[in-house]
Amino acid sequence: MIRMLRGITRQTGLLVAERPAPGTAAATLKIILAAQDHPAPQRLGDNEHYVLNVAAGQATLTADAPLGALRGLNTFLQLIHLSNAGFVVPAVSIDDSPRFPWRGLSLDCSRHFIPLAAIRRTLDGMALVKLNVFHWHLSDDQGFRVESKRFPKLQEMGSDGLYYKQSEIRELIEYAYSLGIRVVPEFDMPGHTTSWFAGYPELASAPGPYSIERKFGIFKPAMNPANEETYEFLDGFLEEMTALFPDEYFHVGGDEVEPDQWKANPSIQAFMKEHGIETEPLLQAYFSKRVQQLVARYGKHMVGWDEALQPGIPTTILIQSWRGPQALAEAARKGYEGILSAGYYLDLMQPASEHYLVSPIQGETAALPVEEQKRILGGEAAMWEELATSGNLDAKLWPRLAAIAERLWSPASAQDTTSMYERLSVTSRWLEFHGLRHRQCLRMMLERLDAGDALAAGHPDRSLEVLERFAEVLEPIKGYTRNENGEMYTQSTALNRLVDSIPPESDAARDFRTLVEHCLQNSSNGALASQDLTRLEAELQAWQANLREVRPLFVRNALMAECNIVADRLETILEMGVEAIDALRSGARWDASSTNARLARLDQAYAPQSEMLIQIQPGVRRLITAAGAVLVR
Amino acid sequence: MIRMLRGITRQTGLLVAERPAPGTAAATLKIILAAQDHPAPQRLGDNEHYVLNVAAGQATLTADAPLGALRGLNTFLQLIHLSNAGFVVPAVSIDDSPRFPWRGLSLDCSRHFIPLAAIRRTLDGMALVKLNVFHWHLSDDQGFRVESKRFPKLQEMGSDGLYYKQSEIRELIEYAYSLGIRVVPEFDMPGHTTSWFAGYPELASAPGPYSIERKFGIFKPAMNPANEETYEFLDGFLEEMTALFPDEYFHVGGDEVEPDQWKANPSIQAFMKEHGIETEPLLQAYFSKRVQQLVARYGKHMVGWDEALQPGIPTTILIQSWRGPQALAEAARKGYEGILSAGYYLDLMQPASEHYLVSPIQGETAALPVEEQKRILGGEAAMWEELATSGNLDAKLWPRLAAIAERLWSPASAQDTTSMYERLSVTSRWLEFHGLRHRQCLRMMLERLDAGDALAAGHPDRSLEVLERFAEVLEPIKGYTRNENGEMYTQSTALNRLVDSIPPESDAARDFRTLVEHCLQNSSNGALASQDLTRLEAELQAWQANLREVRPLFVRNALMAECNIVADRLETILEMGVEAIDALRSGARWDASSTNARLARLDQAYAPQSEMLIQIQPGVRRLITAAGAVLVR
Repeated sequence: MIRMLRGITRQTGLLVAERPAPGTAAATLKIILAAQDHPAPQRLGDNEHYVLNVAAGQATLTADAPLGALRGLNTFLQLIHLSNAGFVVPAVSIDDSPRFPWRGLSLDCSRHFIPLAAIRRTLDGMALVKLNVFHWHLSDDQGFRVESKRFPKLQEMGSDGLYYKQSEIRELIEYAYSLGIRVVPEFDMPGHTTSWFAGYPELASAPGPYSIERKFGIFKPAMNPANEETYEFLDGFLEEMTALFPDEYFHVGGDEVEPDQWKANPSIQAFMKEHGIETEPLLQAYFSKRVQQLVARYGKHMVGWDEALQPGIPTTILIQSWRGPQALAEAARKGYEGILSAGYYLDLMQPASEHYLVSPIQGETAALPVEEQKRILGGEAAMWEELATSGNLDAKLWPRLAAIAERLWSPASAQDTTSMYERLSVTSRWLEFHGLRHRQCLRMMLERLDAGDALAAGHPDRSLEVLERFAEVLEPIKGYTRNENGEMYTQSTALNRLVDSIPPESDAARDFRTLVEHCLQNSSNGALASQDLTRLEAELQAWQANLREVRPLFVRNALMAECNIVADRLETILEMGVEAIDALRSGARWDASSTNARLARLDQAYAPQSEMLIQIQPGVRRLITAAGAVLVR
Repeated sequence: MIRMLRGITRQTGLLVAERPAPGTAAATLKIILAAQDHPAPQRLGDNEHYVLNVAAGQATLTADAPLGALRGLNTFLQLIHLSNAGFVVPAVSIDDSPRFPWRGLSLDCSRHFIPLAAIRRTLDGMALVKLNVFHWHLSDDQGFRVESKRFPKLQEMGSDGLYYKQSEIRELIEYAYSLGIRVVPEFDMPGHTTSWFAGYPELASAPGPYSIERKFGIFKPAMNPANEETYEFLDGFLEEMTALFPDEYFHVGGDEVEPDQWKANPSIQAFMKEHGIETEPLLQAYFSKRVQQLVARYGKHMVGWDEALQPGIPTTILIQSWRGPQALAEAARKGYEGILSAGYYLDLMQPASEHYLVSPIQGETAALPVEEQKRILGGEAAMWEELATSGNLDAKLWPRLAAIAERLWSPASAQDTTSMYERLSVTSRWLEFHGLRHRQCLRMMLERLDAGDALAAGHPDRSLEVLERFAEVLEPIKGYTRNENGEMYTQSTALNRLVDSIPPESDAARDFRTLVEHCLQNSSNGALASQDLTRLEAELQAWQANLREVRPLFVRNALMAECNIVADRLETILEMGVEAIDALRSGARWDASSTNARLARLDQAYAPQSEMLIQIQPGVRRLITAAGAVLVR
């Protein structure tokens, strides 16, 4: 409740008294709870239902349990806005509960360490958008991030000193709990384990020594499933960690195991022969079963990635699918519960709309009988940290994560991406009021890129505006193309270039594309309205003028030097856009070959450069096509 | 050292390894220390001298003691900048030590409570600009902010639950110490003590009950100096607090005591008669002496405001002067050490240049003989929190505090405010890289004021730009005029209006004024160059165009409604500026009476409105004067 009041203050600036004097309240918010206790730890499926009624002078929030009241309070907070009558909450009547009980974020804290303060504000944001599972990816080849008292060499030799103390973890879990968020830890095994082997090389399938992996990709080191001592170690380790993390689910990864070490190790091959294990995937299945037994011994449900689903694994485990609906449907048919992560990978730099249109119940899962569909518990966004640090993490998560949160909470019928973007832009600001830093951190990174100019220009803010205007049409390249061959980046590569300092999705480019479509729809017989042409031209000319202003920066500044080519290509795209508008205005349309030559040139200018894409290209492409359209018809 | 490396990462984005592999360093920073130990607690006058030499591939920092190395590391950090060769540190040779040993910030945490996180980042900023005393104003009429274990009703009844635990205070002192900052606590007495009396009314000079004062101003409640039990209480209290705060200085305030309660209390009057104390100021002197004896008993030097200097007070106390150089000189002549705060009050909303030109050695203090001048130990900026909360504190402190810090560290000869502003604009960004939020917090507050528009406009960032452009010419009114009669504001008044959301000093207005002066100097025979006239006109017209865009916001938004009149006046000022430029261009100058009529109208438009000033008015005023000048001559 105090957090709620502080939230109101952050949002409105009103200094809400935490202990109001009796009789001072002109309007009240009444909270009615059927059950007062908030059981710890929270469990999957805990009741989150609430009813919120707001009328003049009186708001009533009714919930079956405190968790529902928490959700309802965040809705109330979100409804407060500034009108010409002051801060108001609109009269509403909301009966709300989530579509899925598992709505999570999986956060990789291994590849780059994420400090607790950043995790805390991530949890704050998750609670605001009603996510309820924080899946904490705590170990990988590039770092082991948890203090183990039983096996201290894990953190001592596997973390560069960057790990979470057990006391800190307990505090974080307590904090998450107070926000209505479960914490599910993940210790990925038997692959993705190089950092374990730095301290305990005897766990590996090939002789050491090992050291923390600094590159990114899929690596060969894997635990030795043929060595009984591996299971003794894991038994002790899991006893310690299952006690530290109270949630009933416990994630043991299981993805992307390379068979090389197993194939090369004669004793492992002998073990396989002895036990009639014919292939390495079946050896992983054997390992998974053993681990599942250990996890179950400590009273937990095991969670694993798709690969954990192997013949003989009991249906009590939960499958997290990075492969997609087909794998998820197959798991459900076999009796496993599952959650979807494919389609929700925030590190792929996809637009929010693409994530928004992905649903755990879709395609093959939608075709399942209702009983099997029920096994699909929800989904998890996933953020892998190869190319992000705590310095720009917020911008990789937000506001896109809010779109995924809405997908997992709201009815399947919510499909309008235009409306989603309108709300997302408001939510994005709202989240920053509550401590997220997704826009601030990029602004500061742009300032860094502009820093060499601050003194020269005299007007640092205007100089920054010019750089912002240049950057606003750019997006990072998509998918995993940025680190395609895995050679360019290591854990210590600076992530301070322009590509690191822009949002995954360009609002300006989307707006321009929308404007183009709007103008084209507004045309009659392929002739655009003259005021529409003027408006489009003005947009392009403004970017042209800005481009002239920003260029000198690239000369003075080593980090921006790479943008010269980007600027050349942007110039081409803008010129071609203006040319298309001229053609549309004159009515003299291009023939097909001339149009196609232009499109080819335009597409060339769209090739990735400095790991970025010029995202107004698709809008300009539509204009060129339109300028060639009449004659073609 | 780790903090230094993290600072480099924050500033550059380079992921500097905390444990670099041997042989990887192409360039090194060598630190040579004559003395290794960093004595705790720090003391006034500890050696801060350092020598920094940077040459190709090698930087050497030499210091007599770790404190000097800390200062030198911050200089090194400040020198790192982005050039066309990457991040570089220029070749320099610096031999540096401070002009004054006491360079502080006094921060009021009573009138509005300031959370520890905000204090920690304030300390970070102080260390970056080499301030070395955090003067923590911990009690006042509006709140008692320290946990007392001996007298728990102090915080229980005097703080609304908003106080610092002793463990938190110890941690904060430790943190400040690691930054080379001493922490001097202040418990203001015998006035400014209403919050004490909420729990302990028997300390007061008039019967209770008392409750926390919610208004701002000077209030009548004062401790009872005639009651021996007051001293018994203070003895116990000071025993506890002097143990909690390790610094050798201990501030007991002593300012602004109202005599009313003392005059009205017969037993106090009888006490005065009995002891031959003729006036209430002399009664305060008696109280001060008693308190000084208690403070001395626990091994501390007492610090007090000017009023503490009373006949018979030993010269071991230190005087903090809010009155000015005359009072400070008088104290020095009498043998007291002193620090200057008059001229450094950040809550007066003065420009940085004014603070910068104030020196502890100036006027009367400059006229003192060298021996007496040595008693002037430095100065302290002061920030009182009547009209600030942690939400906008950073903007009240920074970047102006950096200008005061430079005054207290650098030689007296540094007097060029133009150069100061150039460096301040760079420093301002630099401070935000290290966690300060002075620009971010105002940007967010402006977003709040613009929030009603976010959905309507579709382009929230452009809508914000329009509001920013409107706000950039405004400043809060100066001095204590904002709360002049003390009736408008209480502790719970929301500080979320436009006046709360703008910096104390408008860069745009200063730049415009500078441009006007530059153009006038560039004139020949009063005729301005035509390109200068065009440039000035363009500036004014841009604000005019923006004004038309921003006006609709005032209709939709209760918090901005008050800006309609501001906008009207700004319109007048801009129109008059354009008119003056027309006149200057045509050469047809106004006669004196016409000019004066215009100036009168212009000055009317400059009257405070919504607690703000339109700060481009002085620049426009110069233009109007110039337009009337030729005929007058």
